[in-house]
Amino acid sequence: MIDRKIIKRLDSPSTIGVIGGGQLGRMLVLEAKRLGLNVIVLDPKPNSPAGQVADFQMVAEFDDLTALKVLALKTDVLTYEFEHIDVGLLEILEQEGNAIYPGAKTLAMIQNKYRQKSSLRNIGIDVPDFHLIENLDQLVAAFDQLDQKIVLKTCTGGYDGKGSRVITERSELEQAFLEFSKYGMMAEELIDYDKEVSIIFAINQDGMKFYPVAENIHHQGILINSFVPANISTEVEQRIQTIAAKIAQEIDDYGVFCIEFFIDSRANIFVNEIAPRPHNSGHYSIEGCITSQFEQLARIITGMPLGSTELRLPCAMFNILGSDAITGKYQISGIDRLMALTDCHLHLYGKPETGEFRKIGHLTAMADTVAAASIKAKEALSLIKINSLRSVCDEKNSQ
Amino acid sequence: MIDRKIIKRLDSPSTIGVIGGGQLGRMLVLEAKRLGLNVIVLDPKPNSPAGQVADFQMVAEFDDLTALKVLALKTDVLTYEFEHIDVGLLEILEQEGNAIYPGAKTLAMIQNKYRQKSSLRNIGIDVPDFHLIENLDQLVAAFDQLDQKIVLKTCTGGYDGKGSRVITERSELEQAFLEFSKYGMMAEELIDYDKEVSIIFAINQDGMKFYPVAENIHHQGILINSFVPANISTEVEQRIQTIAAKIAQEIDDYGVFCIEFFIDSRANIFVNEIAPRPHNSGHYSIEGCITSQFEQLARIITGMPLGSTELRLPCAMFNILGSDAITGKYQISGIDRLMALTDCHLHLYGKPETGEFRKIGHLTAMADTVAAASIKAKEALSLIKINSLRSVCDEKNSQ
Repeated sequence: MIDRKIIKRLDSPSTIGVIGGGQLGRMLVLEAKRLGLNVIVLDPKPNSPAGQVADFQMVAEFDDLTALKVLALKTDVLTYEFEHIDVGLLEILEQEGNAIYPGAKTLAMIQNKYRQKSSLRNIGIDVPDFHLIENLDQLVAAFDQLDQKIVLKTCTGGYDGKGSRVITERSELEQAFLEFSKYGMMAEELIDYDKEVSIIFAINQDGMKFYPVAENIHHQGILINSFVPANISTEVEQRIQTIAAKIAQEIDDYGVFCIEFFIDSRANIFVNEIAPRPHNSGHYSIEGCITSQFEQLARIITGMPLGSTELRLPCAMFNILGSDAITGKYQISGIDRLMALTDCHLHLYGKPETGEFRKIGHLTAMADTVAAASIKAKEALSLIKINSLRSVCDEKNSQ
Repeated sequence: MIDRKIIKRLDSPSTIGVIGGGQLGRMLVLEAKRLGLNVIVLDPKPNSPAGQVADFQMVAEFDDLTALKVLALKTDVLTYEFEHIDVGLLEILEQEGNAIYPGAKTLAMIQNKYRQKSSLRNIGIDVPDFHLIENLDQLVAAFDQLDQKIVLKTCTGGYDGKGSRVITERSELEQAFLEFSKYGMMAEELIDYDKEVSIIFAINQDGMKFYPVAENIHHQGILINSFVPANISTEVEQRIQTIAAKIAQEIDDYGVFCIEFFIDSRANIFVNEIAPRPHNSGHYSIEGCITSQFEQLARIITGMPLGSTELRLPCAMFNILGSDAITGKYQISGIDRLMALTDCHLHLYGKPETGEFRKIGHLTAMADTVAAASIKAKEALSLIKINSLRSVCDEKNSQ
């Protein structure tokens, strides 16, 4: 076993391996390439968003241990861009002497939401009340105990609203239980929050740095937009940083992390979820901060010092999401109108197909105030339209 | 022939083709990918700096017409990252209906320095006095006429100090003539300048935008560093913009261009050279401006509006150059120390080998003043060292 506590300083030229080829991987690769790193991405889908910009993409399933071993062999350090990886495989890679940040132990704690919440409660962090559910009776009991307003969640595998359902009617319990029973599940108190916020932080052997807190709007579990800085008091921001520091101490690992919070009307702060990677609510940092969350991760895993997380200007980040109306190959019109707006930055992820709530890009608008940035971002999003590539062709043919 | 005057608006997904796989291409590709464009690069060297981040690199010689035709066929629009391309081939591609920005006509005017300077003189732009040299007698006559201080230049093919020589001794003329006689050559007045500055500007069908003027330091014809904004009066900046606008009108084409100038002690401004592409002295724009010169080119060739060229903060850009002491495979040490500096941005180009004056990367430091940015950039550069990969291995083996 290597000493994971000392991140090896990788001088140029070095090669990093990224498990997962989605948009988070893509934005990581773009920063890593700027820094002169070689990058190999592993993803089962050829020509993935990250694979398009990496030096090489290994096309393999995430549970293909041989492929993961080859990736480790060909690279100096590994990281991942999503948390649904078999921890057992990462443990094997670590036992064979490969450096992975964050490590298998951290991922194991975070990827199981019940275990994550339990760890947080154990160290005295406020979380929504929660119960592990192993049978329908337990679910009914939890429903009553939690004031008949719960969020039922799968313990593993959920993302972007998938594997999570708000239930306020007793009649829905049985159906939900059946649907979720393939996975472990937990029932969580439905917090009547005023605000959802998140904080990204970076940790390496030198210490930790906080990014400014983002204020987030979700719809059906999907992040719609983020505003930075969040409209919270300095006192609340400090409490959030204190919570994050406590969690960082518990995690005791290196990487870029995100914690999502609920804040209720009495300024109580509850931790909703931790992610062991750059996060959608930190995309604003690409243009908004001196060091983006993606550059930060590239720095950390190559043993470089943390970069400044200072905000250059207030930001509004809006996701560009697919809808259920259009699936498959698509085209986006109105990009020219969006790009006519000053200090409004478009990111498209190169995904070949769209679908309901599919994240196909985002935009970050910057201005002197969050309000101005927000108006600009909203306008920008209103100017573009996702069209089915089929219908565009049909239109052209009928002209 | 297509109407080149109307740039076709390319909606996502579209594919751009880039002739040339060097660092300028690489930085263009990184921005194009962020915007969701597909990119194919053509370069004879496999795994070129730009090819590493593009969707695909065609490995072919620049004069391979078949390969160029395939590139045109596979892409929606073409551009190039260096000017030493056979104009005749670009003309064929244009005649076959392919859009290339800037076009063959523009490249023909710019790539031959004698033709470039003649065009400028014809429209009343101040340039150093110059003479076409076709035999040694003409060279001797020009040497005397130009006060025995000349720059002898090949008319085509020169870059980074190559194909250019300062001559102040009559005894050197014959040797220089023999060396340069493979190409056409011209003798140019050696301007006793106070400052070298450059301006990047972007033109599309909507108009033109100027970037802030950069002040440049060269050594043996290679750009060493740039400071932005240049330490010039508003009046001088306006005169530079007026000259650039006049040249833009003469060029009458679309793209990102750079004009380099000499300014003498009496504030006379002479045009030294035009480049029909993003320029080393505009690298500061990646972090320094709202829209980088590379994003700007991606916007232009895809028919998008020009982005704001506003400067966020004063910048100092230093090239990371190889030396004659180390050639071949290399490693850079001290990157960790450089990255500990706040708002100092490293770019490495992924070139496998170094050599004398080889541009292997650059860094841009930002601060509240040019002086502060400059001190930071200088410090940053002093912290890193290019080592031969062979000697690093030797050291490790002897430990």
